[in-house]
Amino acid sequence: MTKDGGKKDNQGQDKKAQQYGVTPQSVDFNDWYNEVVKKADLADNSPVAGAMVVRPYGSALWENIQRWLDDRFKASGHESLIFPTLIPMNFIMKEADHVEGFAPELFTVNKIGTEELAEPYVMRPTSETIIGHMWSGWLNSYRDLPFLHYQWGSVFRAELRTKAFLRTSEFFWHEGHTAHADEAEARAEVRQQLDLYHEFCRDVLALPVVRGEKTASERFAGAVATYSIEGMMRDGKALQSGTSHYLGQNFSRAFDVKYQTREQKEEFAHTTSWAISSRIIGAIIMTHGDDSGLMMPPRIAPIQVVVIPVGRKDNFDQMVQEGEKLAAELRAQGLRVKVDGRDGVTNGFKYNDWELKGVPVRIELGPRDLESGVLVVKNRHSEDKETLPRAEAVSGMSARLDTIHDFLMKRATDFLLANTAEVDSYDAFQREIEAGHWVRAYHCGEPACEKSIKEDTKATARNVPFDDAEFFAERGEGQCVKCGQPSAYGKRVLFGRQY
Amino acid sequence: MTKDGGKKDNQGQDKKAQQYGVTPQSVDFNDWYNEVVKKADLADNSPVAGAMVVRPYGSALWENIQRWLDDRFKASGHESLIFPTLIPMNFIMKEADHVEGFAPELFTVNKIGTEELAEPYVMRPTSETIIGHMWSGWLNSYRDLPFLHYQWGSVFRAELRTKAFLRTSEFFWHEGHTAHADEAEARAEVRQQLDLYHEFCRDVLALPVVRGEKTASERFAGAVATYSIEGMMRDGKALQSGTSHYLGQNFSRAFDVKYQTREQKEEFAHTTSWAISSRIIGAIIMTHGDDSGLMMPPRIAPIQVVVIPVGRKDNFDQMVQEGEKLAAELRAQGLRVKVDGRDGVTNGFKYNDWELKGVPVRIELGPRDLESGVLVVKNRHSEDKETLPRAEAVSGMSARLDTIHDFLMKRATDFLLANTAEVDSYDAFQREIEAGHWVRAYHCGEPACEKSIKEDTKATARNVPFDDAEFFAERGEGQCVKCGQPSAYGKRVLFGRQY
Repeated sequence: MTKDGGKKDNQGQDKKAQQYGVTPQSVDFNDWYNEVVKKADLADNSPVAGAMVVRPYGSALWENIQRWLDDRFKASGHESLIFPTLIPMNFIMKEADHVEGFAPELFTVNKIGTEELAEPYVMRPTSETIIGHMWSGWLNSYRDLPFLHYQWGSVFRAELRTKAFLRTSEFFWHEGHTAHADEAEARAEVRQQLDLYHEFCRDVLALPVVRGEKTASERFAGAVATYSIEGMMRDGKALQSGTSHYLGQNFSRAFDVKYQTREQKEEFAHTTSWAISSRIIGAIIMTHGDDSGLMMPPRIAPIQVVVIPVGRKDNFDQMVQEGEKLAAELRAQGLRVKVDGRDGVTNGFKYNDWELKGVPVRIELGPRDLESGVLVVKNRHSEDKETLPRAEAVSGMSARLDTIHDFLMKRATDFLLANTAEVDSYDAFQREIEAGHWVRAYHCGEPACEKSIKEDTKATARNVPFDDAEFFAERGEGQCVKCGQPSAYGKRVLFGRQY
Repeated sequence: MTKDGGKKDNQGQDKKAQQYGVTPQSVDFNDWYNEVVKKADLADNSPVAGAMVVRPYGSALWENIQRWLDDRFKASGHESLIFPTLIPMNFIMKEADHVEGFAPELFTVNKIGTEELAEPYVMRPTSETIIGHMWSGWLNSYRDLPFLHYQWGSVFRAELRTKAFLRTSEFFWHEGHTAHADEAEARAEVRQQLDLYHEFCRDVLALPVVRGEKTASERFAGAVATYSIEGMMRDGKALQSGTSHYLGQNFSRAFDVKYQTREQKEEFAHTTSWAISSRIIGAIIMTHGDDSGLMMPPRIAPIQVVVIPVGRKDNFDQMVQEGEKLAAELRAQGLRVKVDGRDGVTNGFKYNDWELKGVPVRIELGPRDLESGVLVVKNRHSEDKETLPRAEAVSGMSARLDTIHDFLMKRATDFLLANTAEVDSYDAFQREIEAGHWVRAYHCGEPACEKSIKEDTKATARNVPFDDAEFFAERGEGQCVKCGQPSAYGKRVLFGRQY
């Protein structure tokens, strides 16, 4: 996806994207992805290097994601704020690891109106620094803590090779930032938010993910510890789908975020940050999609049921009306329903279009069905059409969506497990990675050794699964798969190539 | 509000803001505003020149505003999208009036990572240009129209003198952008959205506003016609609270937004744009607030009812529990309720705090009230406390909030009418403006004449009220109040000083 979607004269050249259907995943997974994103109206290229335009269907999906998470943040006592998009350049410089991590990716603003700025601003790559600065002014006593803050917004990090939702120079997220009086409370927050992300993936997006801690070399720039959830895409690559960081007192020292304790002593706060970004849409696409296009997890789908009125010229309008009646019944159950009343396109075109957009359930409604009191129902993931009594189809729709959710979750889980290998030799490690699998292996914990694995195989340590992770939690000891030294972490590390 | 709120060592100097209460409006309206914004936790200064930090109470208010409007946009068929924050500099140059209007206010990005950009970007001051560019790629046939698009986000316009919510270099808004096959449909959209803003102000924010068309010199840069809603603040100044623009084919010509008509001809689309920004929060503050602080319109208030448990040391916890029970009953009616269970601050402090924050209704709950089955209820705008049977107070709460809404609307309407003068001489014009009033006067319609009025009086033409405006709609003819030429517009123009 490199051409600017706003240029009319470019469209004619984009032959592949104009064909009916999309490139099969097995032929070219990358082409499949880009075509699905574009043809399903999720996003388009923009004239700004590395930035996408999110189109209505993608925006509706993102809004559903935001609303679910936002409700949960608020329910657990978190408060939203809005911090500036710009950050003084010198703020970024204050935390040593932070500047090293972000300097190469920064967008610099050095002119306002006609005035050249002596002190330039950067467009935020993340907001720990400016939030730390503000907290410093707001925090006085232990009574003020904890701060449980978050904001929704855009962040900016230069990307050389862009790919919609996965690597864009502007992306969308919430960033949670909290400050606590002590380490234990801060660490509990870090874990709570990661677990919330896990719950969201499992129960709403039907994404199986592995919770664990990042190794030192994969930590967030400035963090004491970084935790992640990792999902497996249909091409076997990992996608880090959410992160939660314990920042210790690194940022509070850099920004003077201190408070008076109950015992009247000065102490620096312990801070955290956590985020899920618009990358999660990439995870949805690449975990559930197939050669017909998207497959939207039903609980987040912008459209859960599409009704296709099937009529001839003389009764089409009537069928559309009947479709709207049916939709109203379904909406009364709280479902998101669309009636495709487009005239002038074939039923086959409509079927393909909504399959491409991944709507979980399609209902066909024709005059004879109406007469017989039945509906023709088809799940997106199945080839079968079912003819059901209308009342049964309507009353059973929520349960059907739950069943689809469970199906997607199980299929993705089976795939993840089937494509993860436990290895004890570097030969096997390389072979499995080359085959597009994840690998579980013992590792010595040395960053240099991890780096050499990456150079050999392009695989990185995804995380060290928690003891209570749903997958790969078993404890054990062994020899480093690469260098033969005794293993660290007390268990196998999860390796894979990544997005 | 000029000091950076993140600097601890500055706070001690901010004597006025640390005093109990706020400066009375009559003493210094500007100080009153800044202190209310800060002490009510709506917003704080940031270390970024001209940018504010919106704190949780302000953010909750903005979220309520967003949700109401967003639901209505969607209900009328509008779709949200997300366009990039950056715009290629040369896009801004393509529409002549547009570049002239915005060039002095632009934030320029000329470096990404270590790379100096040959073609700089600007941070969007508004998005007509990049949206026009994208539409050009998406639009082919009349069947594709209308495009009914909007996005929520930040925009950036340099401000010399900043003031939270009213003039900030980064502010928050939605921007609606629509494209239509013909002028009539585009103009109907422009009016529909302005009327929606009017409805929102009247029925949700309790803000009386005057709908009308802007004179040529007050038009949006690049528009054929600009319409506005204008509200009157407690100091008599006008605040433009929302705008809707008919852009004709100006932007579609500049960005090649054309389509094939039913008759197979090429035609440029007619486009519109419309917006309400975070300035509306300034209007809420300055229309309803008094010397005790904010007065939140009940239908948008983040907290509609605050419950203050009033107890002694030995029964305070029990009273807090009883307060939560009461809150649960009120929440079951869909109300937004807060229980102030803070220990260690006096009841008087709490009363003042929630008055400052403008919560519409306060309920005091003490042990004797509990025993007698009564509640002590106080409306924010009144001095009177009422002792009511508990069941009556609870069941009547929604109606009470409606009554408060009506009270605020009537008070603001009376104020607006009482402070608007109809004048036919320039002496009277100047006198009334100097007294802080709005003026209704005939005007010749010449921009140069309007400009000289502005130079004399700092007053500008706010708008020419619609024939069906709720105020000042009467048609008539006369002589220009300034130059004596025959009047334009067929009615009196509304003049005033403005925010």
